[in-house]
Amino acid sequence: MTTRILGIDPGTGRLGFGVIEVIGRKSTLVSAGVITTSKDDPHEVRLEIIYNDLSLIIDECKPSIMSIEKLFFAQNVTTAMTVSQARGVVLLLGAQRNMKVLEFTPLQIKQSLTGYGRAEKRQIQEMVRLHLGLKENPEPDDCADALAAAILAATHLENELLTP
Amino acid sequence: MTTRILGIDPGTGRLGFGVIEVIGRKSTLVSAGVITTSKDDPHEVRLEIIYNDLSLIIDECKPSIMSIEKLFFAQNVTTAMTVSQARGVVLLLGAQRNMKVLEFTPLQIKQSLTGYGRAEKRQIQEMVRLHLGLKENPEPDDCADALAAAILAATHLENELLTP
Repeated sequence: MTTRILGIDPGTGRLGFGVIEVIGRKSTLVSAGVITTSKDDPHEVRLEIIYNDLSLIIDECKPSIMSIEKLFFAQNVTTAMTVSQARGVVLLLGAQRNMKVLEFTPLQIKQSLTGYGRAEKRQIQEMVRLHLGLKENPEPDDCADALAAAILAATHLENELLTP
Repeated sequence: MTTRILGIDPGTGRLGFGVIEVIGRKSTLVSAGVITTSKDDPHEVRLEIIYNDLSLIIDECKPSIMSIEKLFFAQNVTTAMTVSQARGVVLLLGAQRNMKVLEFTPLQIKQSLTGYGRAEKRQIQEMVRLHLGLKENPEPDDCADALAAAILAATHLENELLTP
């Protein structure tokens, strides 16, 4: 069975996305990138850009599962609120497209991929590269983090299938 | 010139809305209420309910301006993040419907309506009632706060028109 998973590293200025295809225990890269918006634009315009761009990606790649990073804590409340607004738009799209939505904390993602909750960005990129059989580390960070979220979702589904 | 303004008191469990019609210096109530969602539903489902219900209200009342409460600070970061997700969906709708979007802090709203930044909920309701020529105070709180946001937007527009 083939499943496509859309991973999201949420943000307003930069939103990382990565779509992987899972066949059995093997995952491959379908598409990955970053949606960027300008801080010169008002919030509602930036959110609409994210909604429209992500809609096109979903149209094109047809993922059935969304895996999105949770904001676990935030040093800066203002940043947390802005990123949450973008998360709201992304979650809405998940519901509108009837996707199964999974949410993971950065800690869960790091721990599952590298076995270590405080893994460096470099280590995450390396594990994503190995997992997807890529020649080079995925760049930039936002992409790697989005792909890492997608990979963790794949592991979860596998475990669900294995558990009777 | 007639302008309709949609005021929003954002929230996930309860989202207050109020539409007023402004003709010159006079404002009247068009519609007000609360969109509620259940905490038993996942985030994405609750956000979709807010999006769909608010879409219907916009279809029906045809406001051209949106006035939404800003989260000024938050004692509870988790709550701030959940409310921000709902704000994101509401702002998206504003952009999608080509509405002019205005954002005000609770302090600005209270100060403008009652002349006092620490006004009680009761005072806000009373001022909204007087402003819109209602027989009774608007209930519940979420409605009154949404209408207060709409009234402040009306004042802003009036001032903009008066300033050459």
